Amino acid sequence: MNPHSVIVMSPSKRKTQSDKRVRIIDASVEVFAEKGFRSARISDIAKVANVADGTIYLYFKNKDDLLLTIFEEKMEGLLAELNEALSGEEDPISKMRIYAREHFRRLVADPQLAQVFQVELRQSHKFLREYRPEKLWKYLAVFRRLVEDGQKMGQIRPDRDPFLLQWAFFGALDEISIQWVLSRGRPRFNLEQAAEQIVEVFLSGMAVNQQQN
Amino acid sequence: MNPHSVIVMSPSKRKTQSDKRVRIIDASVEVFAEKGFRSARISDIAKVANVADGTIYLYFKNKDDLLLTIFEEKMEGLLAELNEALSGEEDPISKMRIYAREHFRRLVADPQLAQVFQVELRQSHKFLREYRPEKLWKYLAVFRRLVEDGQKMGQIRPDRDPFLLQWAFFGALDEISIQWVLSRGRPRFNLEQAAEQIVEVFLSGMAVNQQQN
Repeated sequence: MNPHSVIVMSPSKRKTQSDKRVRIIDASVEVFAEKGFRSARISDIAKVANVADGTIYLYFKNKDDLLLTIFEEKMEGLLAELNEALSGEEDPISKMRIYAREHFRRLVADPQLAQVFQVELRQSHKFLREYRPEKLWKYLAVFRRLVEDGQKMGQIRPDRDPFLLQWAFFGALDEISIQWVLSRGRPRFNLEQAAEQIVEVFLSGMAVNQQQN
Repeated sequence: MNPHSVIVMSPSKRKTQSDKRVRIIDASVEVFAEKGFRSARISDIAKVANVADGTIYLYFKNKDDLLLTIFEEKMEGLLAELNEALSGEEDPISKMRIYAREHFRRLVADPQLAQVFQVELRQSHKFLREYRPEKLWKYLAVFRRLVEDGQKMGQIRPDRDPFLLQWAFFGALDEISIQWVLSRGRPRFNLEQAAEQIVEVFLSGMAVNQQQN
Protein backbone atom coordinates (compact mmCIF):
# COMPACT_ATOMS: atom_id res chain seq x y z
CA MET A 1 0.00 0.00 0.00
CA ASN A 2 1.29 3.38 -0.93
CA PRO A 3 2.03 5.11 2.38
CA HIS A 4 0.73 8.38 0.97
CA SER A 5 -2.71 7.02 0.34
CA VAL A 6 -3.86 7.75 3.89
CA ILE A 7 -2.63 11.34 3.75
CA VAL A 8 -3.10 12.43 0.19
CA MET A 9 -6.72 12.24 -0.89
CA SER A 10 -7.37 10.94 -4.34
CA PRO A 11 -8.91 13.58 -6.62
CA SER A 12 -12.19 11.68 -6.76
CA LYS A 13 -12.40 11.46 -2.98
CA ARG A 14 -11.69 15.18 -2.69
CA LYS A 15 -14.42 15.87 -5.21
CA THR A 16 -16.92 13.76 -3.27
CA GLN A 17 -16.09 15.69 -0.13
CA SER A 18 -16.53 19.08 -1.73
CA ASP A 19 -19.71 17.83 -3.41
CA LYS A 20 -21.10 16.89 -0.01
CA ARG A 21 -20.21 20.24 1.45
CA VAL A 22 -21.91 22.07 -1.42
CA ARG A 23 -24.92 19.76 -1.16
CA ILE A 24 -25.24 20.56 2.55
CA ILE A 25 -25.02 24.29 1.92
CA ASP A 26 -27.63 24.16 -0.83
CA ALA A 27 -29.89 22.01 1.33
CA SER A 28 -29.56 24.55 4.16
CA VAL A 29 -30.70 27.36 1.91
CA GLU A 30 -33.75 25.30 0.96
CA VAL A 31 -34.60 24.30 4.53
CA PHE A 32 -33.95 27.73 6.09
CA ALA A 33 -36.13 29.34 3.42
CA GLU A 34 -38.98 26.88 3.88
CA LYS A 35 -39.02 26.32 7.63
CA GLY A 36 -37.32 29.46 8.84
CA PHE A 37 -33.87 29.50 10.43
CA ARG A 38 -35.25 29.18 13.95
CA SER A 39 -37.41 26.12 13.27
CA ALA A 40 -35.03 24.33 10.92
CA ARG A 41 -33.27 21.30 12.34
CA ILE A 42 -29.97 19.79 11.31
CA SER A 43 -31.83 16.55 10.62
CA ASP A 44 -34.08 18.38 8.11
CA ILE A 45 -31.00 19.59 6.28
CA ALA A 46 -29.38 16.15 6.38
CA LYS A 47 -32.50 14.65 4.82
CA VAL A 48 -32.59 17.12 1.93
CA ALA A 49 -28.82 16.83 1.39
CA ASN A 50 -29.11 13.05 1.53
CA VAL A 51 -26.35 12.67 4.14
CA ALA A 52 -26.30 11.37 7.70
CA ASP A 53 -26.93 13.98 10.43
CA GLY A 54 -23.42 13.42 11.78
CA THR A 55 -21.89 14.20 8.40
CA ILE A 56 -23.05 17.81 8.68
CA TYR A 57 -21.05 18.22 11.88
CA LEU A 58 -17.91 17.14 10.04
CA TYR A 59 -18.19 20.33 8.00
CA PHE A 60 -20.10 22.78 10.23
CA LYS A 61 -20.22 23.51 13.94
CA ASN A 62 -23.93 24.31 14.14
CA LYS A 63 -26.83 26.05 12.41
CA ASP A 64 -25.31 29.51 12.92
CA ASP A 65 -22.10 28.34 11.29
CA LEU A 66 -24.12 27.07 8.34
CA LEU A 67 -26.00 30.35 8.03
CA LEU A 68 -22.79 32.38 8.09
CA THR A 69 -21.22 30.03 5.55
CA ILE A 70 -24.19 30.53 3.24
CA PHE A 71 -23.69 34.26 3.59
CA GLU A 72 -19.94 34.11 2.96
CA GLU A 73 -20.03 31.77 -0.01
CA LYS A 74 -23.12 33.07 -1.72
CA MET A 75 -21.93 36.68 -1.33
CA GLU A 76 -18.66 35.65 -2.94
CA GLY A 77 -20.63 34.37 -5.91
CA LEU A 78 -22.86 37.44 -6.06
CA LEU A 79 -19.83 39.72 -5.98
CA ALA A 80 -18.25 37.82 -8.85
CA GLU A 81 -21.49 38.05 -10.86
CA LEU A 82 -21.80 41.75 -10.11
CA ASN A 83 -18.25 42.50 -11.19
CA GLU A 84 -18.82 40.44 -14.31
CA ALA A 85 -21.99 42.40 -15.12
CA LEU A 86 -20.20 45.71 -14.55
CA SER A 87 -17.10 44.82 -16.50
CA GLY A 88 -18.61 45.55 -19.92
CA GLU A 89 -19.36 49.15 -19.03
CA GLU A 90 -17.10 52.18 -18.54
CA ASP A 91 -19.44 54.93 -17.40
CA PRO A 92 -19.98 55.10 -13.59
CA ILE A 93 -23.59 56.26 -14.01
CA SER A 94 -24.44 53.38 -16.32
CA LYS A 95 -22.71 51.05 -13.89
CA MET A 96 -24.97 52.24 -11.07
CA ARG A 97 -28.01 51.33 -13.13
CA ILE A 98 -26.56 47.87 -13.68
CA TYR A 99 -25.79 47.59 -9.94
CA ALA A 100 -29.44 48.15 -8.99
CA ARG A 101 -30.80 45.92 -11.72
CA GLU A 102 -28.42 43.12 -10.72
CA HIS A 103 -29.45 43.49 -7.08
CA PHE A 104 -33.08 42.81 -7.92
CA ARG A 105 -32.38 40.30 -10.70
CA ARG A 106 -30.78 37.98 -8.19
CA LEU A 107 -33.78 38.14 -5.87
CA VAL A 108 -35.98 36.88 -8.64
CA ALA A 109 -33.45 34.34 -9.90
CA ASP A 110 -33.15 32.57 -6.54
CA PRO A 111 -36.19 33.14 -4.31
CA GLN A 112 -34.97 30.71 -1.64
CA LEU A 113 -31.63 32.44 -1.28
CA ALA A 114 -33.53 35.76 -1.28
CA GLN A 115 -35.63 34.57 1.66
CA VAL A 116 -32.50 33.52 3.55
CA PHE A 117 -30.64 36.77 2.83
CA GLN A 118 -33.54 39.18 3.37
CA VAL A 119 -35.31 37.53 6.28
CA GLU A 120 -33.58 34.58 7.94
CA LEU A 121 -30.09 36.08 8.15
CA ARG A 122 -31.43 39.10 10.08
CA GLN A 123 -32.79 36.78 12.73
CA SER A 124 -29.37 35.50 13.63
CA HIS A 125 -28.27 37.20 16.80
CA LYS A 126 -24.73 36.23 15.95
CA PHE A 127 -24.86 37.76 12.48
CA LEU A 128 -26.33 41.04 13.64
CA ARG A 129 -24.46 41.64 16.87
CA GLU A 130 -21.12 39.88 16.67
CA TYR A 131 -20.29 39.23 13.08
CA ARG A 132 -18.33 41.51 10.77
CA PRO A 133 -20.01 41.09 7.39
CA GLU A 134 -16.94 42.02 5.36
CA LYS A 135 -18.41 40.59 2.15
CA LEU A 136 -21.35 42.96 2.50
CA TRP A 137 -18.95 45.86 2.96
CA LYS A 138 -17.16 44.76 -0.20
CA TYR A 139 -20.48 44.75 -2.03
CA LEU A 140 -21.21 48.27 -0.77
CA ALA A 141 -17.71 49.44 -1.62
CA VAL A 142 -18.38 48.65 -5.28
CA PHE A 143 -21.14 51.25 -5.22
CA ARG A 144 -19.08 53.70 -3.18
CA ARG A 145 -16.28 53.56 -5.74
CA LEU A 146 -18.76 54.27 -8.52
CA VAL A 147 -19.82 57.40 -6.66
CA GLU A 148 -16.18 58.38 -6.22
CA ASP A 149 -15.44 57.69 -9.89
CA GLY A 150 -18.47 59.78 -10.84
CA GLN A 151 -17.14 62.60 -8.68
CA LYS A 152 -13.69 62.40 -10.25
CA MET A 153 -15.27 62.56 -13.69
CA GLY A 154 -17.36 65.56 -12.70
CA GLN A 155 -20.67 63.70 -13.05
CA ILE A 156 -21.50 63.59 -9.36
CA ARG A 157 -21.56 66.52 -6.97
CA PRO A 158 -18.44 66.70 -4.82
CA ASP A 159 -20.51 67.47 -1.71
CA ARG A 160 -22.26 64.08 -1.80
CA ASP A 161 -20.74 61.73 0.78
CA PRO A 162 -19.88 58.38 -0.87
CA PHE A 163 -19.67 56.51 2.45
CA LEU A 164 -23.08 57.69 3.59
CA LEU A 165 -24.64 57.21 0.18
CA GLN A 166 -23.47 53.62 -0.15
CA TRP A 167 -25.54 52.85 2.96
CA ALA A 168 -28.50 54.96 1.90
CA PHE A 169 -28.58 53.37 -1.56
CA PHE A 170 -28.17 49.89 -0.14
CA GLY A 171 -30.87 50.64 2.46
CA ALA A 172 -33.29 51.64 -0.28
CA LEU A 173 -32.58 48.53 -2.37
CA ASP A 174 -32.63 46.31 0.69
CA GLU A 175 -35.94 47.58 2.06
CA ILE A 176 -37.64 47.08 -1.30
CA SER A 177 -36.11 43.60 -1.39
CA ILE A 178 -37.41 42.73 2.08
CA GLN A 179 -40.91 43.92 1.24
CA TRP A 180 -40.82 41.99 -2.01
CA VAL A 181 -39.78 38.79 -0.24
CA LEU A 182 -42.32 39.23 2.57
CA SER A 183 -45.14 39.89 0.12
CA ARG A 184 -44.36 36.90 -2.09
CA GLY A 185 -47.46 35.74 -3.83
CA ARG A 186 -49.05 39.17 -3.70
CA PRO A 187 -46.21 41.32 -5.01
CA ARG A 188 -47.00 45.01 -5.02
CA PHE A 189 -43.62 45.84 -6.46
CA ASN A 190 -42.53 45.55 -10.01
CA LEU A 191 -38.84 45.08 -9.35
CA GLU A 192 -37.62 46.35 -12.70
CA GLN A 193 -39.63 49.51 -12.22
CA ALA A 194 -38.36 49.73 -8.64
CA ALA A 195 -34.74 49.52 -9.76
CA GLU A 196 -35.41 52.22 -12.32
CA GLN A 197 -37.09 54.59 -9.83
CA ILE A 198 -34.46 54.20 -7.13
CA VAL A 199 -31.57 54.67 -9.50
CA GLU A 200 -33.18 57.69 -11.13
CA VAL A 201 -33.91 59.31 -7.78
CA PHE A 202 -30.38 58.71 -6.50
CA LEU A 203 -28.73 59.67 -9.77
CA SER A 204 -30.66 62.89 -10.18
CA GLY A 205 -30.07 63.58 -6.51
CA MET A 206 -26.33 63.09 -6.85
CA ALA A 207 -25.78 64.49 -10.31
CA VAL A 208 -23.93 67.69 -11.04
CA ASN A 209 -26.12 68.44 -14.03
CA GLN A 210 -29.53 67.67 -12.69
CA GLN A 211 -31.29 67.16 -15.95
CA GLN A 212 -34.55 65.45 -16.58
CA ASN A 213 -33.99 61.93 -17.82
CA MET B 1 -68.60 47.75 52.48
CA ASN B 2 -69.67 49.35 49.26
CA PRO B 3 -70.57 46.45 46.92
CA HIS B 4 -69.07 48.35 44.00
CA SER B 5 -65.66 48.50 45.55
CA VAL B 6 -64.70 45.08 44.25
CA ILE B 7 -65.84 45.88 40.71
CA VAL B 8 -65.21 49.55 40.23
CA MET B 9 -61.59 50.40 40.72
CA SER B 10 -60.85 53.56 42.59
CA PRO B 11 -58.99 56.10 40.42
CA SER B 12 -55.87 55.70 42.52
CA LYS B 13 -55.92 51.92 42.13
CA ARG B 14 -56.38 52.30 38.38
CA LYS B 15 -53.45 54.70 38.30
CA THR B 16 -51.25 52.25 40.19
CA GLN B 17 -52.12 49.55 37.69
CA SER B 18 -51.33 51.66 34.65
CA ASP B 19 -48.16 52.84 36.38
CA LYS B 20 -47.09 49.25 36.78
CA ARG B 21 -47.80 48.47 33.16
CA VAL B 22 -45.79 51.48 31.99
CA ARG B 23 -42.98 50.58 34.40
CA ILE B 24 -42.84 47.06 32.98
CA ILE B 25 -42.73 48.35 29.41
CA ASP B 26 -39.96 50.82 30.20
CA ALA B 27 -38.01 48.15 32.08
CA SER B 28 -38.34 45.84 29.05
CA VAL B 29 -36.82 48.46 26.76
CA GLU B 30 -33.90 48.80 29.16
CA VAL B 31 -33.35 45.04 29.54
CA PHE B 32 -33.84 44.18 25.86
CA ALA B 33 -31.37 46.91 24.91
CA GLU B 34 -28.75 45.82 27.41
CA LYS B 35 -29.01 42.03 27.29
CA GLY B 36 -30.53 41.53 23.87
CA PHE B 37 -34.05 40.22 23.32
CA ARG B 38 -32.93 36.62 23.10
CA SER B 39 -30.96 36.58 26.35
CA ALA B 40 -33.33 38.76 28.38
CA ARG B 41 -35.39 36.97 31.01
CA ILE B 42 -38.75 37.97 32.45
CA SER B 43 -37.11 37.93 35.88
CA ASP B 44 -34.56 40.55 34.67
CA ILE B 45 -37.42 42.78 33.62
CA ALA B 46 -39.31 42.22 36.88
CA LYS B 47 -36.24 43.24 38.85
CA VAL B 48 -35.77 46.50 36.93
CA ALA B 49 -39.49 47.27 37.06
CA ASN B 50 -39.51 46.44 40.76
CA VAL B 51 -42.45 44.04 40.49
CA ALA B 52 -42.83 40.31 41.12
CA ASP B 53 -42.18 38.04 38.13
CA GLY B 54 -45.80 36.90 38.19
CA THR B 55 -47.05 40.47 37.92
CA ILE B 56 -45.62 40.75 34.42
CA TYR B 57 -47.80 37.83 33.30
CA LEU B 58 -50.89 39.69 34.48
CA TYR B 59 -50.20 42.20 31.73
CA PHE B 60 -48.27 40.31 29.06
CA LYS B 61 -48.33 36.78 27.69
CA ASN B 62 -44.59 36.47 27.10
CA LYS B 63 -41.46 38.23 25.87
CA ASP B 64 -42.73 38.46 22.30
CA ASP B 65 -45.91 40.09 23.53
CA LEU B 66 -43.80 42.61 25.45
CA LEU B 67 -41.67 43.35 22.39
CA LEU B 68 -44.71 43.91 20.18
CA THR B 69 -46.29 46.10 22.86
CA ILE B 70 -43.14 48.22 22.99
CA PHE B 71 -43.37 48.56 19.22
CA GLU B 72 -47.08 49.47 19.24
CA GLU B 73 -46.99 51.95 22.09
CA LYS B 74 -43.69 53.62 21.32
CA MET B 75 -44.63 53.96 17.64
CA GLU B 76 -47.86 55.62 18.72
CA GLY B 77 -45.80 58.15 20.65
CA LEU B 78 -43.34 58.67 17.80
CA LEU B 79 -46.19 59.24 15.35
CA ALA B 80 -47.72 61.84 17.64
CA GLU B 81 -44.36 63.59 18.00
CA LEU B 82 -43.80 63.49 14.24
CA ASN B 83 -47.21 64.96 13.48
CA GLU B 84 -46.62 67.62 16.10
CA ALA B 85 -43.25 68.50 14.52
CA LEU B 86 -44.82 68.67 11.04
CA SER B 87 -47.85 70.68 12.10
CA GLY B 88 -46.06 74.04 12.09
CA GLU B 89 -45.10 73.75 8.43
CA GLU B 90 -47.15 73.95 5.24
CA ASP B 91 -44.67 73.15 2.47
CA PRO B 92 -44.36 69.40 1.65
CA ILE B 93 -40.67 69.74 0.82
CA SER B 94 -39.89 71.45 4.14
CA LYS B 95 -41.95 68.77 5.86
CA MET B 96 -39.78 66.04 4.32
CA ARG B 97 -36.70 67.68 5.78
CA ILE B 98 -38.37 67.71 9.20
CA TYR B 99 -39.39 64.06 8.73
CA ALA B 100 -35.77 62.92 8.24
CA ARG B 101 -34.43 65.12 11.03
CA GLU B 102 -37.06 63.81 13.44
CA HIS B 103 -36.26 60.23 12.48
CA PHE B 104 -32.63 60.64 13.53
CA ARG B 105 -33.34 62.98 16.44
CA ARG B 106 -35.29 60.24 18.17
CA LEU B 107 -32.42 57.75 17.77
CA VAL B 108 -30.15 60.09 19.66
CA ALA B 109 -32.79 61.06 22.22
CA ASP B 110 -33.45 57.48 23.33
CA PRO B 111 -30.53 55.16 22.56
CA GLN B 112 -32.09 52.21 24.39
CA LEU B 113 -35.29 52.41 22.40
CA ALA B 114 -33.15 52.86 19.28
CA GLN B 115 -31.34 49.60 20.05
CA VAL B 116 -34.67 47.80 20.52
CA PHE B 117 -36.21 49.23 17.35
CA GLN B 118 -33.19 48.90 15.07
CA VAL B 119 -31.74 45.61 16.27
CA GLU B 120 -33.80 43.60 18.76
CA LEU B 121 -37.15 43.93 17.02
CA ARG B 122 -35.71 42.47 13.81
CA GLN B 123 -34.71 39.35 15.67
CA SER B 124 -38.27 38.50 16.56
CA HIS B 125 -39.44 35.79 14.23
CA LYS B 126 -43.00 36.73 15.12
CA PHE B 127 -42.50 40.39 14.26
CA LEU B 128 -40.87 39.71 10.92
CA ARG B 129 -42.88 36.79 9.62
CA GLU B 130 -46.34 36.95 11.16
CA TYR B 131 -47.00 40.43 12.40
CA ARG B 132 -48.62 43.22 10.46
CA PRO B 133 -46.76 46.35 11.57
CA GLU B 134 -49.60 48.76 10.85
CA LYS B 135 -48.05 51.52 12.94
CA LEU B 136 -44.96 51.38 10.72
CA TRP B 137 -47.17 51.62 7.64
CA LYS B 138 -48.84 54.67 9.19
CA TYR B 139 -45.41 56.20 9.74
CA LEU B 140 -44.48 55.54 6.10
CA ALA B 141 -47.82 56.83 4.88
CA VAL B 142 -46.98 60.23 6.36
CA PHE B 143 -44.04 60.43 3.97
CA ARG B 144 -46.03 59.02 1.08
CA ARG B 145 -48.67 61.71 1.49
CA LEU B 146 -45.96 64.38 1.46
CA VAL B 147 -44.78 63.01 -1.89
CA GLU B 148 -48.38 63.05 -3.15
CA ASP B 149 -48.93 66.58 -1.86
CA GLY B 150 -45.70 67.66 -3.54
CA GLN B 151 -46.95 66.12 -6.78
CA LYS B 152 -50.30 67.90 -6.52
CA MET B 153 -48.50 71.18 -5.95
CA GLY B 154 -46.24 70.57 -8.95
CA GLN B 155 -43.06 70.33 -6.85
CA ILE B 156 -42.47 66.64 -7.37
CA ARG B 157 -42.33 64.80 -10.66
CA PRO B 158 -45.56 62.96 -11.43
CA ASP B 159 -43.64 59.88 -12.62
CA ARG B 160 -42.16 59.25 -9.17
CA ASP B 161 -44.02 56.42 -7.42
CA PRO B 162 -45.02 57.50 -3.89
CA PHE B 163 -45.59 53.94 -2.66
CA LEU B 164 -42.18 52.77 -3.82
CA LEU B 165 -40.44 55.90 -2.64
CA GLN B 166 -41.86 55.68 0.87
CA TRP B 167 -40.06 52.33 1.20
CA ALA B 168 -36.88 53.52 -0.47
CA PHE B 169 -36.71 56.63 1.71
CA PHE B 170 -37.49 54.65 4.85
CA GLY B 171 -34.91 52.04 3.81
CA ALA B 172 -32.23 54.70 3.48
CA LEU B 173 -33.04 56.27 6.87
CA ASP B 174 -33.37 52.86 8.49
CA GLU B 175 -30.06 51.49 7.20
CA ILE B 176 -28.18 54.56 8.42
CA SER B 177 -29.98 54.14 11.76
CA ILE B 178 -28.98 50.48 12.06
CA GLN B 179 -25.36 51.25 11.26
CA TRP B 180 -25.37 54.12 13.75
CA VAL B 181 -26.78 51.88 16.49
CA LEU B 182 -24.39 49.02 15.70
CA SER B 183 -21.39 51.33 15.66
CA ARG B 184 -22.23 53.01 18.98
CA GLY B 185 -19.11 54.27 20.62
CA ARG B 186 -17.28 54.64 17.33
CA PRO B 187 -19.85 56.50 15.28
CA ARG B 188 -18.78 57.15 11.74
CA PHE B 189 -22.01 58.95 10.97
CA ASN B 190 -22.88 62.48 11.83
CA LEU B 191 -26.63 62.02 11.92
CA GLU B 192 -27.54 65.63 11.21
CA GLN B 193 -25.34 65.55 8.15
CA ALA B 194 -26.80 62.18 7.19
CA ALA B 195 -30.36 63.52 7.37
CA GLU B 196 -29.32 66.47 5.23
CA GLN B 197 -27.62 64.30 2.56
CA ILE B 198 -30.44 61.79 2.28
CA VAL B 199 -33.13 64.43 2.08
CA GLU B 200 -31.18 66.43 -0.49
CA VAL B 201 -30.56 63.37 -2.65
CA PHE B 202 -34.20 62.30 -2.53
CA LEU B 203 -35.55 65.80 -2.97
CA SER B 204 -33.34 66.62 -5.93
CA GLY B 205 -34.16 63.17 -7.30
CA MET B 206 -37.87 63.73 -7.02
CA ALA B 207 -38.10 67.42 -7.79
CA VAL B 208 -39.66 68.83 -10.92
CA ASN B 209 -37.21 71.72 -11.02
CA GLN B 210 -33.96 70.04 -10.25
CA GLN B 211 -32.03 73.03 -9.09
CA GLN B 212 -28.88 73.08 -7.08
CA ASN B 213 -29.61 73.68 -3.42
